Amino acid sequence: MTPLSASNARVKEARKLSRRSVRTERRLFLADGPKAVEGALEVPARVVEVFATPSAREQYVDLLADVDVTLVDDRALASLSDAVTPAGVVAVCRQLDVPLAEVLGGDLVAICADVRDPGNAGTVVRCADAAGADGVVFAGDAVDPSNPKTVRASVGSLFHVPFAIERDPAAAVRAAQEAGFVVLAADGGGEVDLFEADALLARRTAWLFGNEAWGLPDELAALADHRVRIPIHGRAESLNLATAAAVCLYASARTRR
Amino acid sequence: MTPLSASNARVKEARKLSRRSVRTERRLFLADGPKAVEGALEVPARVVEVFATPSAREQYVDLLADVDVTLVDDRALASLSDAVTPAGVVAVCRQLDVPLAEVLGGDLVAICADVRDPGNAGTVVRCADAAGADGVVFAGDAVDPSNPKTVRASVGSLFHVPFAIERDPAAAVRAAQEAGFVVLAADGGGEVDLFEADALLARRTAWLFGNEAWGLPDELAALADHRVRIPIHGRAESLNLATAAAVCLYASARTRR
Repeated sequence: MTPLSASNARVKEARKLSRRSVRTERRLFLADGPKAVEGALEVPARVVEVFATPSAREQYVDLLADVDVTLVDDRALASLSDAVTPAGVVAVCRQLDVPLAEVLGGDLVAICADVRDPGNAGTVVRCADAAGADGVVFAGDAVDPSNPKTVRASVGSLFHVPFAIERDPAAAVRAAQEAGFVVLAADGGGEVDLFEADALLARRTAWLFGNEAWGLPDELAALADHRVRIPIHGRAESLNLATAAAVCLYASARTRR
Repeated sequence: MTPLSASNARVKEARKLSRRSVRTERRLFLADGPKAVEGALEVPARVVEVFATPSAREQYVDLLADVDVTLVDDRALASLSDAVTPAGVVAVCRQLDVPLAEVLGGDLVAICADVRDPGNAGTVVRCADAAGADGVVFAGDAVDPSNPKTVRASVGSLFHVPFAIERDPAAAVRAAQEAGFVVLAADGGGEVDLFEADALLARRTAWLFGNEAWGLPDELAALADHRVRIPIHGRAESLNLATAAAVCLYASARTRR
C-alpha cells in the first residue's frame, strides 16, 4: 500500500482534531508519539485509527504488532503532530474524560482549577499518577486535557488516571465534600503547614490547586475545608503549579502508607 | 530624551547577549522582566544598565525609582527580550556564578548533571530556593544558567541562590564528598526509598539529579554515596526533573526542621 499523503481525506479529517472545537464535537483526539500511543492501546476500544510512517512502523514493530496501521508519508504524519520532531506514529482516540462521580470514588484526587498551560496540566496528571492518586478533575476555565501538549507532558499517565471535566470549580469542591473528601486548598497563605498536616492527610483527600499565574481565587480557597501552605524557605515567593502539586501529592502518599 | 531605537549601538551591543558565546566571553547576561530585574537590583553592583520603554518606566515606577534607566522604544526593547509579550524592562547584568567551593559551604545543595532544558533549570533553582537549599551546581554539559528562559523560569531565585558551573559532573560529586556532604543520587532504580531515608536526609546533603530525558548515567550514580528512589505508584514510570527535584528537596527540608 502506498502511504497516504497529507491531502488524503482521512488524513485531513484527522488533522482537524488539532482544533479544540472539533475534538469536543467529535469526542476524539490525537495521541502523538509511541509513549502516548502505547498508553492509548492499553485501553480497550480507546483507539479508532493509528497512523504511522513506514519507517516508524519498523521502528515500533513491537508496539504496532497487532494493530491495523494506516501508513502515511512523512509530510502527512507531520501534519498530524505538533511536535518539533514528530516520532512517526499518531493515534486517533476516543475522549477519555469520565463523570465526576467516577473520579470521586477514590481516596486521593487532585482538583485543578483554571489550569491554562497544557504542559502543566499534563505534568500534574503524571505526578498524580506517580503519587498514587485515583483521579484528577479539570475544573473551571481549564485547558483541554486532550490537547496534544497535555497528552505528551503526561507521558502516558493521561490514559491511566481517570479524569473528569467540571466547568464550575465550586461545584467540583462541593461534590468532593459531599463524596466524603476533606478538600485541602494548596495556598501559599494557608493556615495549615503541609508538614504538620499528617492527621488531615491520612483522610480521604481532594487537593485543590489554582491557576499557574494567579493561584486560587480567595472565594474558592474559602470553600475548601482547610488551606494548606507549603513552607517556603529562602527568598522564593512560591513554587510553580506542577512542583507544588508534586510536593502536596507526595506528602499525601507518604502519610498514607 | 528620545527613546533609543533598535539600531542604536548600545541596544545592538546588549542584543548580542542573546548568544551564549557572547555572554560567556563578556561575563554579562540579560535579566528580562520586572521580576528578574528586581532580583538583579537587590544585589549590589550586579546591574550594568537597565533598558525600559517609557510606558514600562511609568508602570514600574517603584522598582525603577532610584535607577538610571536607558529609555528605548518598543521595538528596541522587544529585540532584547525573548518573551512572547515583553514586559518592557531588561537589565544587563554581571554573571552570577560563584566558585564551586562557595556553593559547597552550605548544608543542602543540588547538583544538576547535564540539565539541558532552560525552563527546567530555572524551575529547579526556584525549588531549591523555596526548599531552603544553599546552592546549586550546574554540572556537565548543562544549559547556560544565564539563558533568558532559565532566568525567567527561576522567578528571581537565580539571583538569590548561589550557583556554580562545573564541566565535570564526577568532579562535582567528589568535591561535595570532600566537603563533607553525603551525595544522594535521585534515581528511579535506587536502593533507598526516599520516605525511609530520614537518617540520611538529616546529614549535610548534596542531591544529584540527572538529565531530563535519560536520567543519571550509571557510572555517575555509582559515585554517589546512596541512590534514592522516589516511590512511584500508579502506572507512571517516573517524574520529570523539576517535580522530582521538588519532592527530594522538600523531603530534605521536612527532615531538617
